[in-house]
Amino acid sequence: MAVVGAGPVGLAIAWRCAARGLRVVVHDPAPGSGASWVAAGMLAPVAEAYFGEHELTGLLTASAARWPAFAAELTEATGADLGYRTDGTLLVGLTADDLAEARRLWAYQQGLGLPVTPLRPSELRDREPALATRVRGGAFAPTDHQVDPRRLVAALRTAAVRAGATLAPSAVDRLSDLDAGVTVVAAGCGAAALAGLPVRPVKGQVVRLRAPGGVAPGFRHVIRGYADGEHVYLVPRVDGEVVVGATVEERTDTTVTAEAVLRLLRAAVDLLPELAGYDLVETVAGLRPGTPDNAPILGPLPGRPGVLAATGHHRHGIVLTPVTADLIADLITTGVADPLLAPFTPDRFTTEEGNPWN
Amino acid sequence: MAVVGAGPVGLAIAWRCAARGLRVVVHDPAPGSGASWVAAGMLAPVAEAYFGEHELTGLLTASAARWPAFAAELTEATGADLGYRTDGTLLVGLTADDLAEARRLWAYQQGLGLPVTPLRPSELRDREPALATRVRGGAFAPTDHQVDPRRLVAALRTAAVRAGATLAPSAVDRLSDLDAGVTVVAAGCGAAALAGLPVRPVKGQVVRLRAPGGVAPGFRHVIRGYADGEHVYLVPRVDGEVVVGATVEERTDTTVTAEAVLRLLRAAVDLLPELAGYDLVETVAGLRPGTPDNAPILGPLPGRPGVLAATGHHRHGIVLTPVTADLIADLITTGVADPLLAPFTPDRFTTEEGNPWN
Repeated sequence: MAVVGAGPVGLAIAWRCAARGLRVVVHDPAPGSGASWVAAGMLAPVAEAYFGEHELTGLLTASAARWPAFAAELTEATGADLGYRTDGTLLVGLTADDLAEARRLWAYQQGLGLPVTPLRPSELRDREPALATRVRGGAFAPTDHQVDPRRLVAALRTAAVRAGATLAPSAVDRLSDLDAGVTVVAAGCGAAALAGLPVRPVKGQVVRLRAPGGVAPGFRHVIRGYADGEHVYLVPRVDGEVVVGATVEERTDTTVTAEAVLRLLRAAVDLLPELAGYDLVETVAGLRPGTPDNAPILGPLPGRPGVLAATGHHRHGIVLTPVTADLIADLITTGVADPLLAPFTPDRFTTEEGNPWN
Repeated sequence: MAVVGAGPVGLAIAWRCAARGLRVVVHDPAPGSGASWVAAGMLAPVAEAYFGEHELTGLLTASAARWPAFAAELTEATGADLGYRTDGTLLVGLTADDLAEARRLWAYQQGLGLPVTPLRPSELRDREPALATRVRGGAFAPTDHQVDPRRLVAALRTAAVRAGATLAPSAVDRLSDLDAGVTVVAAGCGAAALAGLPVRPVKGQVVRLRAPGGVAPGFRHVIRGYADGEHVYLVPRVDGEVVVGATVEERTDTTVTAEAVLRLLRAAVDLLPELAGYDLVETVAGLRPGTPDNAPILGPLPGRPGVLAATGHHRHGIVLTPVTADLIADLITTGVADPLLAPFTPDRFTTEEGNPWN
């Protein structure tokens, strides 16, 4: 079988399939250089549960539940430190307006039965003393964790190769060029040109800071804040890195703009003043593979026997990696589609006029 | 003769001396990688005329007056485009407080007879329509020009080599290791360890933006602004680059901090809103060679026959390059010290107890 795309999704599928005895070739001229290179790695089924995305929320929750075992298995297979942390996420509103906006979403999430617990400012600062004193309120999402996507991709490469998969540094221009019984399109935004799927680039800009002096950041939770109307997240790594993100822009370029860096830094420092003294070590932009309903495209392509999609993961590629890999590998090796896949199959975009990508 | 340091000062001295027939070797393991790599390249004898620095102001003015001929000669010798621009500088106060602070300095500069002309907000925007509408006032300094320091250094390397100088990629740890009749210490901050001179690093952080689409920036003057108490300059290049600088910090590291980038970008965008849409292409920090009186150290070292200093140029290395090169070359080739040098000789730091660097 062939996998097009050596991001986390493609590599995890290759790992799973190779481990089950399939002969797998993963094609990518630049493994791990796509959306995952920029991603912060939040595993956030709760904070990412938005109005009107009920089915996606279910998939996020199912995949997040698989993360502890997935991380353990990957670490066991490779010895790699994934930067996997389960300290949980603090949701924070800086001003009264920010808090009012955030509370509407938290109420929705609580209504779904998701674990999100409101906290008073004093309770927030008990958990994270580095938060700005003017923070007006927040909440705790204990099951929203994090992993370092760059470490994840490196580990998945090792695991896939150790399981017997081959990495081919070749660009694939046409699926018909591949000589494989089964082909998985895990090419992120590239799935549009390659398979005609309704995947569009959604630009995200990110700033990476680093605690000075080689120490860990002065906070341990992922912080997701609303700061004067700006949505920002702060993801602290044990190695001192803090990822500050991210813009969401309907653009196809990967330039970093003055405005994005200014807005991200302003919101970050407003929420956590000590970040002002951190080193700014990287500014970077990437393209998420967005879809019309913000949900991934998983499963067989109509009218294209032997071709499966595993793309369109948008903001959720890292958290959705385990469930995507498991279900696609199951489908390929057993022929049985898990019911979880049903809402996400490619044929949901087929119109009455027929398959839009034929 | 030997020159230690291949920044603009060392290279210009080498060029001048080689052109007069001296055999010159310039020692530097990383030419052009010091303060000049970070510098914006403002040639600003007027805007840099500060209270209590009368003699330095005289040297800045003398060197600025040499710049047109120096640039023409260097371009003639190399064919290089130096990014030399004579559009002049707009001095801008964003708020009433900013303007009050700025006006005290402008009055001082006018009192010295320097060309600085107050402008009303409407006059400012006539000259530079891209300025923020809330700018409260400003002034025009027509003789404050700019050059691109990276292009300058590249051209000076070419000119020095064409004139017969040799570049040696060797680090010099001790002056006594050099086998030369005359040695010029043009090593920036390195002059402290090398010659015991009272030169200390003064950190400066800078952000480089670029106009999107490969066009020139939407403004042509250098802008020096006071923005809510923040001092910032914006230097537009024909090739689309805009240098935003700079912090002045008594620190010896060259890390870029979140706070510096945030403050520079905020002030820049407040003064010139269109910069928000520019690409952020570089963040960088460097170390200026500062001295106790903010003036350079030029001339023979007491008690060290054949050793001359040309360092300590602090914020003014680029504008002071022509006068430094001319006067040091004159001194070496004729033995006659120009009276301009008198206030800047190394012996001004000698105490009654004797030479502090013996």
